[in-house]
Amino acid sequence: MKVANFDHASATPLLPEALAVMRPFLEAEYGNPQSLHSLGQKPREAVDRAREQVAALLNAGSANRIVFTASASESNNLAIKGLARALQDKGRHIIVSAIEHQSVLEPARALAKSGFELTELSVDRHGLVSPNELKEALRPDTVLVSIQHASNEIGTIQDIPALAEVAHEHGALFHSDGTAAVGRIPVDVQAREVDAYSFSAQSIYGPKGAAALYLKQGARPVSLVHGGIQEKGKRAGTENVPGIVGMGAAAEVAARDLAGWSARMKSLSDRLRQELPGRLEHIVLTGHPEKRLPGHLSVCIEFVEGEAMLLFLNDEGFATASGSACTAKTLKASHVLLAIGLPVGKAQSSLVLTLGKDSTEEQVSRFLDVLPPIIERLRGMSPLYAKFQKGEDPYETHDQSCHGEH
Amino acid sequence: MKVANFDHASATPLLPEALAVMRPFLEAEYGNPQSLHSLGQKPREAVDRAREQVAALLNAGSANRIVFTASASESNNLAIKGLARALQDKGRHIIVSAIEHQSVLEPARALAKSGFELTELSVDRHGLVSPNELKEALRPDTVLVSIQHASNEIGTIQDIPALAEVAHEHGALFHSDGTAAVGRIPVDVQAREVDAYSFSAQSIYGPKGAAALYLKQGARPVSLVHGGIQEKGKRAGTENVPGIVGMGAAAEVAARDLAGWSARMKSLSDRLRQELPGRLEHIVLTGHPEKRLPGHLSVCIEFVEGEAMLLFLNDEGFATASGSACTAKTLKASHVLLAIGLPVGKAQSSLVLTLGKDSTEEQVSRFLDVLPPIIERLRGMSPLYAKFQKGEDPYETHDQSCHGEH
Repeated sequence: MKVANFDHASATPLLPEALAVMRPFLEAEYGNPQSLHSLGQKPREAVDRAREQVAALLNAGSANRIVFTASASESNNLAIKGLARALQDKGRHIIVSAIEHQSVLEPARALAKSGFELTELSVDRHGLVSPNELKEALRPDTVLVSIQHASNEIGTIQDIPALAEVAHEHGALFHSDGTAAVGRIPVDVQAREVDAYSFSAQSIYGPKGAAALYLKQGARPVSLVHGGIQEKGKRAGTENVPGIVGMGAAAEVAARDLAGWSARMKSLSDRLRQELPGRLEHIVLTGHPEKRLPGHLSVCIEFVEGEAMLLFLNDEGFATASGSACTAKTLKASHVLLAIGLPVGKAQSSLVLTLGKDSTEEQVSRFLDVLPPIIERLRGMSPLYAKFQKGEDPYETHDQSCHGEH
Repeated sequence: MKVANFDHASATPLLPEALAVMRPFLEAEYGNPQSLHSLGQKPREAVDRAREQVAALLNAGSANRIVFTASASESNNLAIKGLARALQDKGRHIIVSAIEHQSVLEPARALAKSGFELTELSVDRHGLVSPNELKEALRPDTVLVSIQHASNEIGTIQDIPALAEVAHEHGALFHSDGTAAVGRIPVDVQAREVDAYSFSAQSIYGPKGAAALYLKQGARPVSLVHGGIQEKGKRAGTENVPGIVGMGAAAEVAARDLAGWSARMKSLSDRLRQELPGRLEHIVLTGHPEKRLPGHLSVCIEFVEGEAMLLFLNDEGFATASGSACTAKTLKASHVLLAIGLPVGKAQSSLVLTLGKDSTEEQVSRFLDVLPPIIERLRGMSPLYAKFQKGEDPYETHDQSCHGEH
């Protein structure tokens, strides 16, 4: 059975256009872009072109503003640790939101263990960061603010221009993790006036192992990987030429086709959001009702465990997720769902659907048909549901200590 | 004209066997190894298998000892900064050799700027580090020693077991950069008792964008990239599945074919080493005469500039290098050649040939034919050579301040 990918946040198929431009660099054109001899020429030109393509997708102004890395996680780490370290003589306070991806939260917390102070901003029940709360959290020694463009877990899109403006008014740099946003909504880093912006090739159906960090002129992070002149010294190591040229080609396709992808994904996720409540009782749609990513649906389906749903849906041919890909195996309730105020018990019943440009009406129809009997079956085995039916509070004996915490 | 690659240190062609196993993961099997649904299954199994293949090549004992990274530079940075940071409460002195690659030297120097003390060990005129000198440099607070297995620039192979033993006697961990060694000589990390060992897929004709760090049980570096459970938390970020499986396949081929590759490369480089002095006057073969990498030849050709030779050789269809790939564009005299005691003037006349498994006798014969007329032509234009012919010291007015420094 062909699996329908409703988990594009974890992985996207590679665009044929990207694979086609990668092929020569996996074969005859294997040279090192840094070589002075002719084996280096075409790889160098191809990397230069890819840098322009990625810059164009973000409206970065110049290809020089793009640093290639190996993953959005690396881009986030380079931005957070690198910019904070570069500015540590100016101040040692940084601010992130409580619903950031772990690859922003963990480096921020690592800094907090080594001389920095960290503020984790709370969010409202839709997952929005308030520019006013950011303003209150900013201090004279705040050097960096990092707030995601959109959430892979609940789909909420932040008001980046307003947040960046507040940060800049207080003299702090502003970084945004765009991994969930790029490929779903238009991104213009100059219009949004961010100082740094991360995303991966996978966001735009490019190859794994390639990602980028946009850095506004003057934003100069301390490197994570020292020791080479690649990426203007910001990231040493022989360039992953096939990965980079594949990312460039994907960026060009995304720039051309985004409007169509976005409209199609939005109509499918809107339909899911409208029809699911009629098919299932006791569900909580999470994330912002309007300010949300096209193709994204997140929902807590009470009394059943996310992982169980995921496995039953897999048997029916649907790849789905519960929480973020990177923490899925840890089986903890998502810090994002706790941050928007869900109790642990509900948070553990999370289902996250991330459709893609090739998702179809037929897949959505079939999904709407197969989900209710799965939930019925799982609730039939659920002690929580049994309690609920007896009129008891099913979450009462559950760990209450985490309610609303983040 | 097809270019003969005499610069495998910069780039190697991808093994067809590696590309073949990468293909499905560039196409239908695009899933994320961390996904719980079925799209993740084959990628996860393939990454597991690649880890076993890489572990087998190094005789690492267990696949759990291998961390995948994106480049040997990243592996070196993770080893140097990560292990030093992990051990900083035990002591803050580290030791490297003066002829390490920049991706070892620069992170070591970065540590030296943030609370660590660094000793850069000198080498003898063949580039060898003396175990006795290492012993004298070790202190009670030395936590880490890093000495390369072999030099990409001068081909010298270090006595790793003796050096590691000295480090261990003094309670320090021992890391070795094996980027130049792997694929040319056998490596057994358990027999050599190293605690950490870096190399890239490119060393074994694997894809760019993939590399590994061997870590002996108990060696636990602080991560460079935080925020995910990949690589057991040692390196966050979605795995570069095609790159990793390609590296695994290349490791298996290398384990099988290394003896043949090595013998063939040795016979070609031995021939170059024997015949060059008969074809060219005023040359200095660099590196150790016997303890050297198969397929490697390094030579200073007096009175001509490395870059000029490289460009003329390129016109004749040979890709060659002068100094290391990562510093080639900076046009500085190689720190390695200065460390073995060459004056700046001679160091700038460096030519480095790194043959590969597919290099041929015919290529070597043609190289021996085309090089002398190129040198004759360049010397005809060289003010240094003109001085020399007049009986003057051509290097006298040259910057003498760097002689023998490192």
